[in-house]
Amino acid sequence: MMETNSKVLKVTSFISEMKDVARSFKENDLNVGFVPTMGCLHEGHLNLIKKSLESCDRTVVSIFVNQTQFGPNEDLHSYPRQLQSDIEKLEEVGVDVLFHPTNEEMYPSGHKTSLQVNKITKSLCGKSRPSLFIGVSTVVLKLFNIVQPNKAFFGEKDWQQLAVIEALVEDLNLDIALIRVPIVREADGLAMSSRNCYLSPQDRITALSLSRSLKQAVDVIRQGTTSSKVISHLIQQCLLEKGGLEIDYISICDPKSFKEKEQICGRTLIALAVKIGKSRLIDNCVIEEF
Amino acid sequence: MMETNSKVLKVTSFISEMKDVARSFKENDLNVGFVPTMGCLHEGHLNLIKKSLESCDRTVVSIFVNQTQFGPNEDLHSYPRQLQSDIEKLEEVGVDVLFHPTNEEMYPSGHKTSLQVNKITKSLCGKSRPSLFIGVSTVVLKLFNIVQPNKAFFGEKDWQQLAVIEALVEDLNLDIALIRVPIVREADGLAMSSRNCYLSPQDRITALSLSRSLKQAVDVIRQGTTSSKVISHLIQQCLLEKGGLEIDYISICDPKSFKEKEQICGRTLIALAVKIGKSRLIDNCVIEEF
Repeated sequence: MMETNSKVLKVTSFISEMKDVARSFKENDLNVGFVPTMGCLHEGHLNLIKKSLESCDRTVVSIFVNQTQFGPNEDLHSYPRQLQSDIEKLEEVGVDVLFHPTNEEMYPSGHKTSLQVNKITKSLCGKSRPSLFIGVSTVVLKLFNIVQPNKAFFGEKDWQQLAVIEALVEDLNLDIALIRVPIVREADGLAMSSRNCYLSPQDRITALSLSRSLKQAVDVIRQGTTSSKVISHLIQQCLLEKGGLEIDYISICDPKSFKEKEQICGRTLIALAVKIGKSRLIDNCVIEEF
Repeated sequence: MMETNSKVLKVTSFISEMKDVARSFKENDLNVGFVPTMGCLHEGHLNLIKKSLESCDRTVVSIFVNQTQFGPNEDLHSYPRQLQSDIEKLEEVGVDVLFHPTNEEMYPSGHKTSLQVNKITKSLCGKSRPSLFIGVSTVVLKLFNIVQPNKAFFGEKDWQQLAVIEALVEDLNLDIALIRVPIVREADGLAMSSRNCYLSPQDRITALSLSRSLKQAVDVIRQGTTSSKVISHLIQQCLLEKGGLEIDYISICDPKSFKEKEQICGRTLIALAVKIGKSRLIDNCVIEEF
């Protein structure tokens, strides 16, 4: 017989109701894991959820396409939404609560507070998307305050976002353990992303150059190349080889401060962002000290 | 026999210790009141503390001269500090915990997060002290996260500050009841302020023009004057009558949005800021609808 999940997923759109649930979890001394998402759940999300289910008594997932983190010319309106199939996935894996507020619930008229993590938000994605991290950090803080988790799970694909959230948790003295989860990839190497669904079959092939170029970079580093300029040039060639792709940035930098490195020495982040058709895709890898 | 307070004041400078205490209060289901201060405690502070002691199971007071809310040419270094006599006052009234962290404890190297409440921070004190409310709201959020109070007590002398903190509590979905406490004045009308101790005997007399001008404004409004221009002119004359004082602003505005009003109609805030010698003093009153 197939094993079926016997839990009932509680679904709420209301902050007050979500807070009541969070309060009852606290009163019953239950350890709460939280996975904030923008929906359109893929294997990357499901992996975060799995980690939470494994290590926490209760798991809360939020689905909220947070408009404040999108710039005026970005893909807020076309961002993929598929609530019904997301709910089915959450039921299937045994999530306890789905919080999916409306925009009006999260940002009622008169909302005027925003959070800014400085320094580490000026480069990489923060440079080409200036409203991104103010929007992300404000909404994540709101969600943390509403859900009151003990642990929160984030994927390393959004490496810089994770660093921003780590900074806000530490700087604002929050008692939340952030759990970093490695990138989940398709069989052919493409990093999982809700935005992958925008890709045409041709663009889907083009997109493979991100993970391929990272792999090539790692290979030449293992063979002894240390010049960031040389490696960056190699990545650029690999990305542009077959056309159909526009590079936003190639960064070889410190994984915490995001300061660019001239040489690969110590722990190093290689992070990429490109545009393929309508999609902006990112990927990264970390070279551990060796 | 004189009644003496038998409680022992717990004093800590460490965030981790303060959090442990807050956690034990929560575990014992105790209602916690919080009065954040910059020390140099006067009757205004003691009144806030009294309100907390009356309505909460435990009262936490913080003393922290928050450098991030002072501008480069402001009085951070000369701001009055008198920890020992503050501790005696807190012991006498029966406060449970004093949290007085160092600057390094609150802002360790690498701290990079700041909170901004927009719109209502552009006028009045926010105009002449641009770093004030970013500093205030960031430190208050940190203190709230550390102390985890059910209620927090603030004086209406810092009317705009209270509006900023109300906005951040609402916008960030915090479960803290903010208790507004009216201004406490000296017998002659001067609003209590730690900065009053800077005043020379002559300046102390000059400073009375703040409350006097507000009283005159209220009187003429009760008699039927509704033009803000007329009232503002009257206040200005009263403030400048005896010299020795520089006006920063006279604002006749909405008490929530701080939009200037041309006519007194509906609930109205009259707020003043002046400089007398080294001291910047503020005062205000609210005209209720009549």
